[in-house]
Amino acid sequence: MTAEPLLERLHPTGLHDHDPVFTLHEQGKMEVRSTVPLADRDDLAAAYTPGVARICTAIADDAELLYDYTWVGGSVAVVTDGSSVLGLGDIGPAAAMPVMEGKAILLKEFGGVDAVPLCLSTTDVEEFIDTVARLEPSFGGINLEDIAAPRCFEIERRLQERMGIPVFHDDQHGTAIVVLAALVNALTVTHRQVLDTTVVISGAGAAGVAIAKILYEAGIGDIRVVDRQGVIGHHRPDLPAHKAELAMMTNRNGVTGDLASALKGADAFIGVSGGTVSERALAGMNDDAIIFGLANPDPEVHPDVARRYAAVVATGRSDFPNQINNVLAFPGMFKGALAVRAEHITEGMKVAAANALAGLVTDRLAPDFVIPSALDRRVAPSVAAAVATCARRDGVARR
Amino acid sequence: MTAEPLLERLHPTGLHDHDPVFTLHEQGKMEVRSTVPLADRDDLAAAYTPGVARICTAIADDAELLYDYTWVGGSVAVVTDGSSVLGLGDIGPAAAMPVMEGKAILLKEFGGVDAVPLCLSTTDVEEFIDTVARLEPSFGGINLEDIAAPRCFEIERRLQERMGIPVFHDDQHGTAIVVLAALVNALTVTHRQVLDTTVVISGAGAAGVAIAKILYEAGIGDIRVVDRQGVIGHHRPDLPAHKAELAMMTNRNGVTGDLASALKGADAFIGVSGGTVSERALAGMNDDAIIFGLANPDPEVHPDVARRYAAVVATGRSDFPNQINNVLAFPGMFKGALAVRAEHITEGMKVAAANALAGLVTDRLAPDFVIPSALDRRVAPSVAAAVATCARRDGVARR
Repeated sequence: MTAEPLLERLHPTGLHDHDPVFTLHEQGKMEVRSTVPLADRDDLAAAYTPGVARICTAIADDAELLYDYTWVGGSVAVVTDGSSVLGLGDIGPAAAMPVMEGKAILLKEFGGVDAVPLCLSTTDVEEFIDTVARLEPSFGGINLEDIAAPRCFEIERRLQERMGIPVFHDDQHGTAIVVLAALVNALTVTHRQVLDTTVVISGAGAAGVAIAKILYEAGIGDIRVVDRQGVIGHHRPDLPAHKAELAMMTNRNGVTGDLASALKGADAFIGVSGGTVSERALAGMNDDAIIFGLANPDPEVHPDVARRYAAVVATGRSDFPNQINNVLAFPGMFKGALAVRAEHITEGMKVAAANALAGLVTDRLAPDFVIPSALDRRVAPSVAAAVATCARRDGVARR
Repeated sequence: MTAEPLLERLHPTGLHDHDPVFTLHEQGKMEVRSTVPLADRDDLAAAYTPGVARICTAIADDAELLYDYTWVGGSVAVVTDGSSVLGLGDIGPAAAMPVMEGKAILLKEFGGVDAVPLCLSTTDVEEFIDTVARLEPSFGGINLEDIAAPRCFEIERRLQERMGIPVFHDDQHGTAIVVLAALVNALTVTHRQVLDTTVVISGAGAAGVAIAKILYEAGIGDIRVVDRQGVIGHHRPDLPAHKAELAMMTNRNGVTGDLASALKGADAFIGVSGGTVSERALAGMNDDAIIFGLANPDPEVHPDVARRYAAVVATGRSDFPNQINNVLAFPGMFKGALAVRAEHITEGMKVAAANALAGLVTDRLAPDFVIPSALDRRVAPSVAAAVATCARRDGVARR
């Protein structure tokens, strides 16, 4: 029996031998492991048959025990259809898997949450919803990821209506939470009040919509959202549903025109469009402006240029100060939601997460330090505690 | 920020404090872990953004790289609807989770396969099939588990037709493989030839049907399958599809009547019915008979009684000799199938697995030792090697 030559995993292709990133990714980035002993007959009898039957019977009698005696209570599915992956776009579910694995291991590393990447071979909204909803007995929460707008909005809303566990689209709310945290601190640094601040958001995709909503929730004075057709507002005919909703809560002064028009007299610019913004347009902003150019790897405006027009500059990149990184939000969000068995994520829980995140650096605030480092191990526990407390206050916690 | 009291997991219920099996199962039996470092900025840049984008792009260009650069190639979903769990029956998907977790950690422990338990909240055949099929980009194989007959047959068949990865219903084929292995060795011990042997199977559920098929494939002389209505054969009107198929390949002498009639002149009895068999019926078997009473925890006939009528006795229990335990089959089956990226599991691969399993104890064969111990660490690699070799021979291996 010469098992080894066949079974030993061959070096995949040899094509990428030179590239350490490919070497790192060989056979993927994660594994499943037993947390109980399986060495002898007694171990098997306790962890598997016949012992396990008693646990099954207990859960059959009391469904809530699923969360006590299986890994479900501490686990999350990271689910995508691969339709809007990083800056790569619609690359499909298989090609999205490396990102989902990355998300899963970050959830574990920072939040202690066991996460499973699931890439679905469907882009049909109904099929996607049905598939995820049927997985409800298997996970404590659902992290939606890299799903194209606008269907990501409907998928999240309807899944959350249908499921009794938290559903969280990270591209929307993870980004929005970190942006709000950084913005709140940037307002402090520039001596502004939330209610008097005008923020311009460039981009009305998943991130732009969610940022607009959380800023509205947080009481930002005025918000102007700009898409390819210009400022969104009631003057625009035939807006799709998610933009019509934005028109209701933004642009209170009825500004029309392009991004430059929107930026006139604005205090903060948040770019989540992947496009660019001209220096001429930035020059129209108020003094001591705030500029978050979050497109990756190329921000809407280079930080060195942005600094000419702004007191506080943030990007999505780790090689400049003030990195807006979702890893500051999603591990703590799920850690907190799972700890109290939240049935869903409320708007309050998102704002609470942002405030906890912002609060971690208030004692050292500076223009180049408005948000904690992505590697700051205090972040997830603090966010989780705030989220858990808020879930109880909002009446969505099951314990 | 007083995070700890909220976030520390409370002891679940206190109801089961006295029971070490419940203590063992607290928070479940498994976890997900990163296999790459995530300590600093460079680690994040390689495992996540921006580095990961290169892996995504490579997979988008060549779909086969999914199996090289993600965990998919070494992973299996263990999927159930909870409709036929252990001896407990239709307890539903949530209550089935402890068994699926057990299966998952056994796959890892013995086969080195990363397995994810998925319990689906549907018992509709179409919904179940659609849901699992849409998960194809996420796993290297599908282990179906504890699904009621007869829908388990259709689900397995149609999923395997639809998916390009191996689909294996362990309650059928895992049991059948181990039974065939033990039977082959029992025939040797009792100096019988495969072609001259008559085997009676009591039970025509998932296990009974699969055992009948693998014994037919292995060339057993005659097979008689008995359900609650008696021996299955062409004389029975209105047989459902899976039993009509059995009638085609079994009962070549047209035996009718009950289990006792079937056992008259038979060499081996295999009980997978959960019922009982009378001593009077067993007395009708040939000398030096073979009796496998596999119902758990109560075999169809107690081993002490069975020994009065048989030279070789096996059960499903670990506290008697010759334990027929599926863990002897499924970890090696998936380990071998994944190693060569088999597109499906052929009948030959099952027989090869059984022969490899049987071969591990041929040098020490005895009436009380016709099958290796469930804890024998040689088993999974040997089974895997045989399965992988056969997959290549059968032309279903992608490498």
